Parts: sequence; C-alpha cells; structure tokens
Amino acid sequence: MDNGLTDATPTAAAFRLILLSKSNPVMGCYMFWTSLLVLKMLVMSLLTARQRMKTKTYANPEDLRLSRSPEVRFGDPNVERVRRAHRNDLENILPFLLMSLVYIASGPNPLTARLLIRIGASARLLHTVVYAIIPVPQPARSLAFFTTFAITCFEAGYVLVCCIKYI
Amino acid sequence: MDNGLTDATPTAAAFRLILLSKSNPVMGCYMFWTSLLVLKMLVMSLLTARQRMKTKTYANPEDLRLSRSPEVRFGDPNVERVRRAHRNDLENILPFLLMSLVYIASGPNPLTARLLIRIGASARLLHTVVYAIIPVPQPARSLAFFTTFAITCFEAGYVLVCCIKYI
Amino acid sequence: MDNGLTDATPTAAAFRLILLSKSNPVMGCYMFWTSLLVLKMLVMSLLTARQRMKTKTYANPEDLRLSRSPEVRFGDPNVERVRRAHRNDLENILPFLLMSLVYIASGPNPLTARLLIRIGASARLLHTVVYAIIPVPQPARSLAFFTTFAITCFEAGYVLVCCIKYI
Repeated sequence: MDNGLTDATPTAAAFRLILLSKSNPVMGCYMFWTSLLVLKMLVMSLLTARQRMKTKTYANPEDLRLSRSPEVRFGDPNVERVRRAHRNDLENILPFLLMSLVYIASGPNPLTARLLIRIGASARLLHTVVYAIIPVPQPARSLAFFTTFAITCFEAGYVLVCCIKYI
Repeated sequence: MDNGLTDATPTAAAFRLILLSKSNPVMGCYMFWTSLLVLKMLVMSLLTARQRMKTKTYANPEDLRLSRSPEVRFGDPNVERVRRAHRNDLENILPFLLMSLVYIASGPNPLTARLLIRIGASARLLHTVVYAIIPVPQPARSLAFFTTFAITCFEAGYVLVCCIKYI
Repeated sequence: MDNGLTDATPTAAAFRLILLSKSNPVMGCYMFWTSLLVLKMLVMSLLTARQRMKTKTYANPEDLRLSRSPEVRFGDPNVERVRRAHRNDLENILPFLLMSLVYIASGPNPLTARLLIRIGASARLLHTVVYAIIPVPQPARSLAFFTTFAITCFEAGYVLVCCIKYI
C-alpha cells in the first residue's frame, strides 16, 4: 500500500477492507481496464462520424450544410453496422463494468477477479475489431461476445450467493 | 459487521462511515439487486437472438451462413419488440443503478433505501415480463415503468438537496 | 469533514484516503452533477412520450387503445430526433459518469477534478437543449458534444497512466 501506513497498525489492517480504493490491486486493475473500455466506446462515435461523412448519411437537417448534402438519409449499411456495434457495447460493456465494480466490492479472490476483468475487457476490444473494423466470418464475433457475457454472469452469480442474506 | 471489529474500537465506529462496502447492509441489498438486474439485461440479448432465429431476421451478412437465410432483414415486429424492451432497460436500469449507488453514498435512512432499491428493481423485472415476454394491455407496462422512474427521481432529488453545497 | 473526527486522530487522516465518500468534496460535487444528469436523462423519456402523443406515433399495438390511433407507426422525424438525442446520452453520459467515478477513485487534484465534472456535466445539459428542445444550427451541438468527449478522454488517460502497473 502506498498510503504510508504499515501493516502493524490496526488502521492499515482495516484499510484492507476498503475494497473500492486504489490500495486494492483488484480495483487498480479494474480502473485500468475501465478506462480502456470507455476510450473504446468513445472511439465508436468517431467511427460512426467517419462513416456518415464517407457515405454522406446525415440524420439531422442541421448537419447538412456542413457537408453540402442535399437531404437527410437513414439506413446506410456501413453506418448501421457501426451503430449496431456501438449499441452492442452499451448493452454489454456498461453492465460488465457495473457488475465488476459490485463484484470487487464483494471481496472476491484477487487473482480470479483480476483474471476475469482482464479477459472480459480484452474480449470486448476484440469484439469491436471483428464487428465494426474488419468484419470477420462467424463465429469470431459470437465467441468474443459470449466470453464477456459468461464472465458477467459468473460475477452476478457470485454476488447473488454472497449477498443473498440482504435480499 | 462480519469484519471482526467490535463496536468498542474507534476504527469500527469509523467504518460505519464507509457506505460503499459490504459491511453496510444497504450496499449488500444494492449488490444483490444489481446482480439480478444485470442478469435480466443479459437475458434480453438471448431473447433477441431467439427471436432472430425464429423469424430468420439477421442484421449482418456474416450471420447468414449459420442459419442458411438468403439475405439480411430488418424490422420484424417480434425482434423489434424485444429490442425496444432492451433499449428501455438501458435508458432506465443503468441510470437507476448508478443513481442508487450515489444515493447510498449520501448516507440515507437504511430502511427507506433498502425499500426503494427492492421496489425499483422488482418493478423493472415486472416491466420486462409485461413488455417482452407476455405482452399485456396497458397500463401494466406504464405502471411498472413509472414506479422505477419515480424512485430514481426521488433518489436524485435527495442527493441534489444533500450535496447542494458542493455544486 | 462532518463525521466528528478531528484531524489529530490517525483515523481522520486515514479517512482522507476514502475517496468514494461524502467526506471527499470531489465526490460530493460528482454526486450533485450525477443526480442532475440522471434527472435530465429521465426527462428524455417524457419528451419522447410527448412527441409520440403529439404525432400519434406509437410503436406497440397495446398502446393504441389509450390514444385511439388506428395503427402502429415508426419513423416520425420529431419522435426520432428525441430518440437520437436520448441514445446519444446513453453513449456519452453513462461512460462520462462511470469514468468520472473511477477518476475520483484515482485521487486526482481536487480543483481540477471538480472543474472537469462541472464543465463536462454542463456541456451535456447544453447538448440536450440544442439537440432535442430547440434545434440550433451546427456547430452548437458538436461543440457541446466534444467538450464532454474531451473531458472523458482526459480522465481515461489520467487513470490509464496512474494504474498502468496494475495492467
């Protein structure tokens, strides 16, 4: 711990219990991968904007002047692919991050927890690559999808059992 | 508290203040219901996949080979119903969970807080049943929707008043 | 701090380290603006409902009886504008709020952190006004969008550097 407290003081021992703080390596790992996934999600907006410019598919009349497009358009397949990938992120990354935070607060085994966070986050990075950047034949996307899906389920199951008495 | 500290030590008394930890029963309750709602949101993906398979409505060309469908399709009413329910979850469950976490950190009355979390989460479970699983005539869906809506508003109002000095 | 502990006790000094608690003014600021943004997101649902009633554009058959509309309709431009604004909120506000929480847990400079939270949240409030309430010519919406976008990126970069050792 980098807070200047030694293990001998009771306070230091007690601080081991503050799971949602930087002094907990699992939380540090979570913070690192959360930042990476948030950046990835933001990049989806830029990818959508790039496809909109490339195909001149603007959804709002006030966006037309900037690009000298004659009218609003919807349903371009390239734009829609990136938007589906983005929506899939909202449906999976946000629950995964929230669930992982709650999982950390339940005090799991640190090695298991760090492993789950690393694999879950990496699978979502891979998911975006095979969905929105270089479309790859199935089952590449399904495998990436179900990896994070299974990890989120495991974390939820763990917390459910752990907190059943507070129902 | 199950951390081995007795109430006599000052540290134990101080730890009462760590609201975002398992030693706080409100947080335990939040963790239980968050897990349940996250699982519910993940199930929406499976319900969408089931409807896609049943109606052979695939949105991506790379998904066609698996199901021997001739072309991508959009707008099937059964698929769209589940997708609308899923989007409604993103729009309401995620803010509810985030808001409840912040509400807990503001140190509310434990009994009220646990009641709000239980009712808010149960209403969203009900919402999914009457929207995506067994479509029921209105106002079943509206009632479930506005229950969680009102609870989230109350929590936001409580925190706004409580933290106005930090604006 | 309003928890009755004086600065002289070691516990009080240690509690300075509990970043995710009301005793941290940055967290108080975060809690205030989170509540405001959550309320704003909930209002989007009401705006959508208002546009649906005004234009009689209902997406579910069970909603028709209430409004005596003959059939389900999709794609009304007024409804779709509010829905796009709402989706944009999901894509940007939720990552911003989650990222800010993690950023606070990394122990940033309090003045910088509070400034970033205030500006980022205010920009999103402005974004909704110029997108869904009074459509304003570009670049009003883009400026509001990229302000929060840049702040979220900065926070993510800060945490990445700060937690690189936990990768």
